Amino acid sequence: MTHTATLLISCPDRKGLSAAIANFLYTYNANIVHSDQHQDNADNLFLMRIEWDLADFTLDMNAFSAAFQPIADRFQMTWKVSLSNRPQKVAIFVSKYDHCLVDLLHRHKSGELKCEIPLIISNHEDCRALAEFYGIEYHVISVNKDNKAEAEAAQMALVIEKEIDLIVLARYMQVLSHDFTAKFPQRIINIHHSFLPAFDGAKPYHRAFARGVKLIGATSHYVTEVLDDGPIIEQDVNRISHRDDVDALIQQGRDLERVVLSRAVRWHLQQRVLVYSNKTVIFD
Amino acid sequence: MTHTATLLISCPDRKGLSAAIANFLYTYNANIVHSDQHQDNADNLFLMRIEWDLADFTLDMNAFSAAFQPIADRFQMTWKVSLSNRPQKVAIFVSKYDHCLVDLLHRHKSGELKCEIPLIISNHEDCRALAEFYGIEYHVISVNKDNKAEAEAAQMALVIEKEIDLIVLARYMQVLSHDFTAKFPQRIINIHHSFLPAFDGAKPYHRAFARGVKLIGATSHYVTEVLDDGPIIEQDVNRISHRDDVDALIQQGRDLERVVLSRAVRWHLQQRVLVYSNKTVIFD
Amino acid sequence: MTHTATLLISCPDRKGLSAAIANFLYTYNANIVHSDQHQDNADNLFLMRIEWDLADFTLDMNAFSAAFQPIADRFQMTWKVSLSNRPQKVAIFVSKYDHCLVDLLHRHKSGELKCEIPLIISNHEDCRALAEFYGIEYHVISVNKDNKAEAEAAQMALVIEKEIDLIVLARYMQVLSHDFTAKFPQRIINIHHSFLPAFDGAKPYHRAFARGVKLIGATSHYVTEVLDDGPIIEQDVNRISHRDDVDALIQQGRDLERVVLSRAVRWHLQQRVLVYSNKTVIFD
Amino acid sequence: MTHTATLLISCPDRKGLSAAIANFLYTYNANIVHSDQHQDNADNLFLMRIEWDLADFTLDMNAFSAAFQPIADRFQMTWKVSLSNRPQKVAIFVSKYDHCLVDLLHRHKSGELKCEIPLIISNHEDCRALAEFYGIEYHVISVNKDNKAEAEAAQMALVIEKEIDLIVLARYMQVLSHDFTAKFPQRIINIHHSFLPAFDGAKPYHRAFARGVKLIGATSHYVTEVLDDGPIIEQDVNRISHRDDVDALIQQGRDLERVVLSRAVRWHLQQRVLVYSNKTVIFD
Repeated sequence: MTHTATLLISCPDRKGLSAAIANFLYTYNANIVHSDQHQDNADNLFLMRIEWDLADFTLDMNAFSAAFQPIADRFQMTWKVSLSNRPQKVAIFVSKYDHCLVDLLHRHKSGELKCEIPLIISNHEDCRALAEFYGIEYHVISVNKDNKAEAEAAQMALVIEKEIDLIVLARYMQVLSHDFTAKFPQRIINIHHSFLPAFDGAKPYHRAFARGVKLIGATSHYVTEVLDDGPIIEQDVNRISHRDDVDALIQQGRDLERVVLSRAVRWHLQQRVLVYSNKTVIFD
Repeated sequence: MTHTATLLISCPDRKGLSAAIANFLYTYNANIVHSDQHQDNADNLFLMRIEWDLADFTLDMNAFSAAFQPIADRFQMTWKVSLSNRPQKVAIFVSKYDHCLVDLLHRHKSGELKCEIPLIISNHEDCRALAEFYGIEYHVISVNKDNKAEAEAAQMALVIEKEIDLIVLARYMQVLSHDFTAKFPQRIINIHHSFLPAFDGAKPYHRAFARGVKLIGATSHYVTEVLDDGPIIEQDVNRISHRDDVDALIQQGRDLERVVLSRAVRWHLQQRVLVYSNKTVIFD
Repeated sequence: MTHTATLLISCPDRKGLSAAIANFLYTYNANIVHSDQHQDNADNLFLMRIEWDLADFTLDMNAFSAAFQPIADRFQMTWKVSLSNRPQKVAIFVSKYDHCLVDLLHRHKSGELKCEIPLIISNHEDCRALAEFYGIEYHVISVNKDNKAEAEAAQMALVIEKEIDLIVLARYMQVLSHDFTAKFPQRIINIHHSFLPAFDGAKPYHRAFARGVKLIGATSHYVTEVLDDGPIIEQDVNRISHRDDVDALIQQGRDLERVVLSRAVRWHLQQRVLVYSNKTVIFD
Repeated sequence: MTHTATLLISCPDRKGLSAAIANFLYTYNANIVHSDQHQDNADNLFLMRIEWDLADFTLDMNAFSAAFQPIADRFQMTWKVSLSNRPQKVAIFVSKYDHCLVDLLHRHKSGELKCEIPLIISNHEDCRALAEFYGIEYHVISVNKDNKAEAEAAQMALVIEKEIDLIVLARYMQVLSHDFTAKFPQRIINIHHSFLPAFDGAKPYHRAFARGVKLIGATSHYVTEVLDDGPIIEQDVNRISHRDDVDALIQQGRDLERVVLSRAVRWHLQQRVLVYSNKTVIFD
């Protein structure tokens, strides 16, 4: 089992940047196993993800920050380092539709999603048996017009207690308040059942049917304070025909939702997503 | 070379409809070569396309209308019959971007689009050599803010003179007036370079880039008086990544535009498109 | 809840066929809710699927066969009628990989697969807890080189006892004998993890990786006595890159396998699949 | 107009590699505009494409080789540098089917393919007018069983005279001899009209139809001495149905062939393709 460190960097593009990073890592004998970078020439931005094996690395990771900060300062970097042996903690929020939850839990069990899932929160009882089958705590917090602030406070208390790194809205049918989402910037992933920006908001399959589109879509994105407007992580579509009624769109859409949400979660967990200008870079 | 007749029908769904149509055709010894139907159970609509070989057909097609009308009346049908040996006449409108025009003309020459193309109209000289290479009349009619009505009158005169059945807007960058489009209901096909209803209107690739979508699309549709809102005939998408700048989207989009427009034109020429509720049925 | 009958027909194409079928159904006041047909002009074959509401139908379905057989004889039809209120019984065979099983059971529970699943057979214990979660009998029948005939006899006994209509091989890693498969013609569906006919046989992902293909695929098909050669029901592909190692192909392939197998099973249960010339027609 | 240099490298993966390359370029003040690398951890290979603006670069490109070779030797690199202001020279070989030729010539004219096309060679007269329309020399060299060696000698003479860098077989229906292909390793691109390795060899659409596949494909690859076995550059597929006869497959396949061939040519011209183990890396 290899333990690796992954460094995500964004900064203004400047000559010498690659050399500075490469030399730093070489100094401590890093065995680089994966590296990808992107230059946005229009915005003059440099974005990088670099992963190295910790086996031969001669710098104690507890000292990494102190050692790297001078380079970061020199190039005005925003950066983050993460360690493969400290898996992220994920909370899943769900309502009644269980297809995304079933899918995420199975992927987790099969090892595809390398994380811990200590918490499922729902506004309904429906998915409790499923959570129990996978041995995960399941909390029902009812939400209605009058108790929203209170409900979110209860959710937040659980999220803090479990030291959650990432919240996944797996067809959670409540809109989170700005207060809530502001506390988890780029750490709440939602699945919207349309090809955004088409059909944002409510009942996208009904509206896709009414408009007579020939493809339906699904979009996973980070949640921001504007509904369905956050940075898009992944999208996919499926061909439909005039023979498909709304129920058929909903059914086929479930296949899209599962796959599109799971890719976003996997990429996020692998530190492969970097946000800028309300868009995402997905490092290969 | 087989000559066929194709009947397109839409009407309220009622028992006995299939039997009435099948019996009518059998009475005149029709050899049915293709049949497809669709029932919209929500709207209680019956839609059908049926094509038969004229070789053994014992009813003179000049007498078809008189013979079929009683059945049509009985079931309140909207119907249309067309003959494969009377190819439709198509006018192509184009501006400076020539990729869709190149594509349509080559498909026509290779026999994929069974029609006549007696006329190309442009607001620029750019595509004249191409039109001449394929031996097609090319008319330049300049359009600006002040002469729009006059220009459309000149276009219309040519369209009437050439007895045009279908107008294809092959990246024609002028918006046609309601007066003009109202004269060709469901007979003007446009290609829009986005996945409608996302990014309707101007500069869709720039807006797709700004929004950070992960797929770009193209949409072919019938032109109605509301811009980019007509019945969608075909759509397709292509995956992009953060590495693709606007120019890359435009370049990749050309491949989508070509294919999506050509499918719509081919299906229309094959009498496979039926419009209802601002949507299309594409018969197989 | 609507109860319908579905009639599948294949026969030589002849004039009067459509009229004969339509008249028969109209005679008994059938309310046709769906109809699709295909004519293979090369083979002179007529293939049809027609579904009607039983509410107003004046012919007792127990008398259907006697009433319809004269027409079937006249046109040399092969035909089959099925009733929506008599759901098929499905047995799932599985080994250790559980992703297709998880998927099928969830789709069944959510109502997407309209059938009964009274039986899961495996050569391993691994999926027992899952079967129990869904309340389905789970039988382990070990298979090895020496006991294959015996094992198949035990499988067959269960299949007969449960009156199974369809066997689904959900990544069942044993090859069934000709004796076994011959007893279930067009009633055993397998998922093969490649785009057949490429990479038939063992270890398709490893061979796809070695060949450097740019897309991986999955294929669902009816099992015949020739391995991976039966009529293909559905296929789909997913784009990969040089960055994907064999493990990544296997992981991404699971998403294909789930979807491709589930479509085949759903279409089969909906009586939408008709086999001829070792190929399938999938009625819309 | 930016002039850039692009360096392609493959070598055993070793610590310090990235640093050595980055430092070398930084020494000469390179402004890196694009960089992508791939590590094949199974084969312990390091593969890289790096492109920099020549505007500020202080090393004369005529001296590049002498300056870089010591680093190349130290890390046992195979490497190649190319300059954007020295466009490659491309010869297109074609037979009677002109759809790929039409497509490539239009893409070239529109600026999508940055290269020179001084030469088209065909074994038929059919495409002469098209070549003349684009102002490109067109040579007819008949090929039959008896004159193959002679014909290839004539082709080779033209290719040498025009200093051709890349040969594109745009549906050229003759098999080139090993002698010929051996002289252009990784410099002959072919389009095969199937999803390889399925249906290699003759008449792939007919065989796809006979097998009843649900998707057809096209594959662009470098030509090696084994027919249809060279490194795959790009593949794509299109969904078909039982309604599509062989002619329909051929027609739809043309759209695949055009796009799949043009991508391969574009990527090759952009120095984005690197071959190893009979596979390709396509740098982003």
